[in-house]
Amino acid sequence: MDTGITSKTPITLLGLGDMGTALAHSWLAAGHPLTVWNRTREKAEPLVRGGARAADTAAEAIASAAGPVVLCLLDDDSVGETLDGADLNGKDVVNLTTGTPAQAGRRARWVGERGARFLDGGIMAVPPMIGRPETGGYVFYSGDRELFDRHREALEVPAGAEFVGEDPGHAALHDIALLSAMTGMLAGITHAFALVSREKDLDLARFAGLLAEWLGAMAGSSQEMAAQLVSGDYTEGVTSNLAMMAAGNDSLLATARDQGVDSRLLVPYMELMRHRVAQGHGDEGLAGLVSLLPAAH
Amino acid sequence: MDTGITSKTPITLLGLGDMGTALAHSWLAAGHPLTVWNRTREKAEPLVRGGARAADTAAEAIASAAGPVVLCLLDDDSVGETLDGADLNGKDVVNLTTGTPAQAGRRARWVGERGARFLDGGIMAVPPMIGRPETGGYVFYSGDRELFDRHREALEVPAGAEFVGEDPGHAALHDIALLSAMTGMLAGITHAFALVSREKDLDLARFAGLLAEWLGAMAGSSQEMAAQLVSGDYTEGVTSNLAMMAAGNDSLLATARDQGVDSRLLVPYMELMRHRVAQGHGDEGLAGLVSLLPAAH
Repeated sequence: MDTGITSKTPITLLGLGDMGTALAHSWLAAGHPLTVWNRTREKAEPLVRGGARAADTAAEAIASAAGPVVLCLLDDDSVGETLDGADLNGKDVVNLTTGTPAQAGRRARWVGERGARFLDGGIMAVPPMIGRPETGGYVFYSGDRELFDRHREALEVPAGAEFVGEDPGHAALHDIALLSAMTGMLAGITHAFALVSREKDLDLARFAGLLAEWLGAMAGSSQEMAAQLVSGDYTEGVTSNLAMMAAGNDSLLATARDQGVDSRLLVPYMELMRHRVAQGHGDEGLAGLVSLLPAAH
Repeated sequence: MDTGITSKTPITLLGLGDMGTALAHSWLAAGHPLTVWNRTREKAEPLVRGGARAADTAAEAIASAAGPVVLCLLDDDSVGETLDGADLNGKDVVNLTTGTPAQAGRRARWVGERGARFLDGGIMAVPPMIGRPETGGYVFYSGDRELFDRHREALEVPAGAEFVGEDPGHAALHDIALLSAMTGMLAGITHAFALVSREKDLDLARFAGLLAEWLGAMAGSSQEMAAQLVSGDYTEGVTSNLAMMAAGNDSLLATARDQGVDSRLLVPYMELMRHRVAQGHGDEGLAGLVSLLPAAH
């Protein structure tokens, strides 16, 4: 990079928290010219030593941006404060700040009103996974498809890039839907460990390996559920139906009682199953349970 | 098999429901001499045409058994009724009937008092996966290690065999712990589909593929949790700590509200996280949550 000549897209990155710093290192390592800004300047120093340029203000960083302006800030309010007063006209704004689909939609309009294109991203990785494709992280993008295609090579550097729709909220929706599913899985894992962790002659590390393997195999049931939701036929491809699964829940609850474990993490889903079977849908698979979750208004 | 000469272990199988029938076919296909019994005889006919012998009574099937007597019945009560009056002395009893660890422990003693060896099994597969190793199913076994080793080759035929301890309840405990974790994962998947399923321009099949991949990758966090539970240091190897995860829950709940989705499946686990952070353990990973699940007595 000492020649100052490069064909790589220059990146302007605002926000050097743990994730922003990891992103910065991955772009530097891939040979992208990088301008960084952070509210507290010290965070930029190691990157400057690595070849980045540190801007004094966010507005200056944006004014000099010849490529995408990437935001990786604390939250959507920080995005508003950071962009306030900067001239966004004609810029390509890529927002990797964690937020909700509604925030992404509002931010897309706000940025559009200021003459810039907008792409929102949701990072499915923790900072140590950035720049290490073998760890399996990735980033969802949604919004301006042309912006995504133009900068795709650069956007793929930190952890891969999946475009999931022109609705700017869809990246955040994917992000949050996957995190929500993970929350349920972690609840299940927590209950499972509670069942076994007091058995002194049980090898917890081996158990964890079997558990991870099992959950990985069973995660594929989401594809059966998707097929049922698309067709609207919730009995499609069912091998183990709701009535059978609901009947099996008694053994799960009895075992929890015997092991002295509170089942509060599993009961709400079991109640959904019981309710759906009582409605006469015991021959269905799991997709019908999705319809039982609309919020009361 | 027409020669009547075989070196394969003869199997006696009691119970020809969907699972018992699948087991029977896998042993027949692998060349094991097979005697079957079922409460209603018709179920045995297709197997007899395939080379099995049908016994008239359970007691007769057991009396003539030269190899393991495998039980695959409705529940533990059915096991008691089926074995009642049969001469078990010197027999090898392998119980693949679904039940709780406590039932397996009681049944092991009951069988032992009648002069037989006992092995309990928990089948981690649905019937279509039996005899198809590529589908990834397996069977947990616990109890008499010598019995397991002697019949291992035959026991591995339907779906592989994992010995998980001499405590006869440990196979059922593994079975139920894995099913419990799956229940949590399915709850999370259900919530995730509720979030996205009303978005008309979102490809549900593609979403399901991304979701399955993500959950498969994240299932490995059970291994970090096991390491923390073994060492007792719940901050060990933490990349994303409880405080950060708990803070992120607000976005999950806000998005659910915006999408009109009731969060009841996720809230109990989020409450555990909040409680643990409030106790001053925000720097921990997830293992500390396990200690919050003991049942109130």
